[in-house]
Amino acid sequence: MSDVPTRTVFFISDGTGITAETLGHSLLAQFPEARFRQMRVPFVDDIDKAIDCATQIREAAREDGVRPLVFSTLVNPDTVAALRKADALFMDLFERFIGPLEVELGQRSTHAVGRFHGVAESNDYKRRIEAINFALAHDDGVSSNGELEEADVVLVGVSRSGKTPTSLYLAMQFGVKAANYPLIPEDFERNRLPGELHKYRGKLFGLTIAPERLSQIRQERRPNSRYASLDNCRYEIEAAQKLMRRENIRWLDSTTKSIEEISATILQTVRLDRPGY
Amino acid sequence: MSDVPTRTVFFISDGTGITAETLGHSLLAQFPEARFRQMRVPFVDDIDKAIDCATQIREAAREDGVRPLVFSTLVNPDTVAALRKADALFMDLFERFIGPLEVELGQRSTHAVGRFHGVAESNDYKRRIEAINFALAHDDGVSSNGELEEADVVLVGVSRSGKTPTSLYLAMQFGVKAANYPLIPEDFERNRLPGELHKYRGKLFGLTIAPERLSQIRQERRPNSRYASLDNCRYEIEAAQKLMRRENIRWLDSTTKSIEEISATILQTVRLDRPGY
Repeated sequence: MSDVPTRTVFFISDGTGITAETLGHSLLAQFPEARFRQMRVPFVDDIDKAIDCATQIREAAREDGVRPLVFSTLVNPDTVAALRKADALFMDLFERFIGPLEVELGQRSTHAVGRFHGVAESNDYKRRIEAINFALAHDDGVSSNGELEEADVVLVGVSRSGKTPTSLYLAMQFGVKAANYPLIPEDFERNRLPGELHKYRGKLFGLTIAPERLSQIRQERRPNSRYASLDNCRYEIEAAQKLMRRENIRWLDSTTKSIEEISATILQTVRLDRPGY
Repeated sequence: MSDVPTRTVFFISDGTGITAETLGHSLLAQFPEARFRQMRVPFVDDIDKAIDCATQIREAAREDGVRPLVFSTLVNPDTVAALRKADALFMDLFERFIGPLEVELGQRSTHAVGRFHGVAESNDYKRRIEAINFALAHDDGVSSNGELEEADVVLVGVSRSGKTPTSLYLAMQFGVKAANYPLIPEDFERNRLPGELHKYRGKLFGLTIAPERLSQIRQERRPNSRYASLDNCRYEIEAAQKLMRRENIRWLDSTTKSIEEISATILQTVRLDRPGY
């Protein structure tokens, strides 16, 4: 690998740069052998900043000995022109797609700089923030009577099966209100769902995980505890799956899945009663 | 507006669809007058699913009376071909950029389906999950002695200025470990930073917010309380800004900013000592 040159990749935007970075990461993942150094350059909203960027690109080219890759979502043509004075492989996301969209929609685009401007006031955004607050307030079985009425989905599973990060991702990315509820040994002994969960069976979604992986995760948290022991993890997982099967709860195995994959699967399965989901 | 036809937009992917959706949202935001109904179709990883998708596209075209827009990140050429049998404006993100990247890098892409496959085992992903756990464990001033040593950034600000969602976003999107610490009236009376914060001045970043907006947010939480009153919000904000100014803490006004914008600004300002940030 030592003879593979490191290539600098720039994510350049007049806004946060998150769109450029998301697409860039997806594309670069198709080249696992290549070596990249990544630079995020957000808020490039005037020509001076674009000229600075062009300088950075030239410096990176000189250091690496190969020209950089640039993923950009700049909207202003003058800014784009200033940037393009540097030599790089430019992948301009807006340039490629805005034209065809204008033709198709029979409308000019606004060329509004910074896709997030005004977002903070939008209803979509407020829904996401509310959903984050909801997830935090209804984490780990914290729910008073009737509060789950408001939940779009209620995740269940043994401790450390991935419920909390998934709830937060569902909220943050999709504005989905996700509560989560642990399944604990007491529930298995009584052989029934905890709390009020039976009332919300249609909203329940289970997460399970390989006992070996669970034990490993729990070891990091409480080394050498009964809680983390492989035997106990095997028992809990088996009992939880039995309970979920009996209660007809849909579930997935989170062992090798990212929170993005888990969340997309949940949305697809639960088919939330809302346009777009 | 009533004569603007609603147009169906599909986000189609062999993975989660999040890349297609992120870019699609950015592009559609450039057409605020248009009306869209959005459909996410993830995990289209075989020809049968692509044929189903094509059927959905045809049905949407019939219902809307206009052909749909399709943002896709499909990798497999056979799946792409099956999808393209429907009539739509296809914006194929990989098709547009993979070719130029292959030429530039002098490598074939792997054409690996589902960009997240294997992600759950990667170090980047583990860092993000660790950062989420860190943010949750160090939310709202919960930090034992020395624990902030591990933080990449420590957000400070009055209650409800946006610290918690921002900490979580920094963790989830960027794998940055963000703790957060409220500034409360006791701190203003003593006129010094709470807890051990003075030890970590280089990591501190402040959030402020317009008193009117703060009062509105707090009203939703505790209606008609002194906590939510405009007078009290004015006092707290002024005192917090004075404290931050005196302690030389960098800060921004979160009033009209999204958590994406706040996070991107923090990363840019704090210039975390790590490649890519």
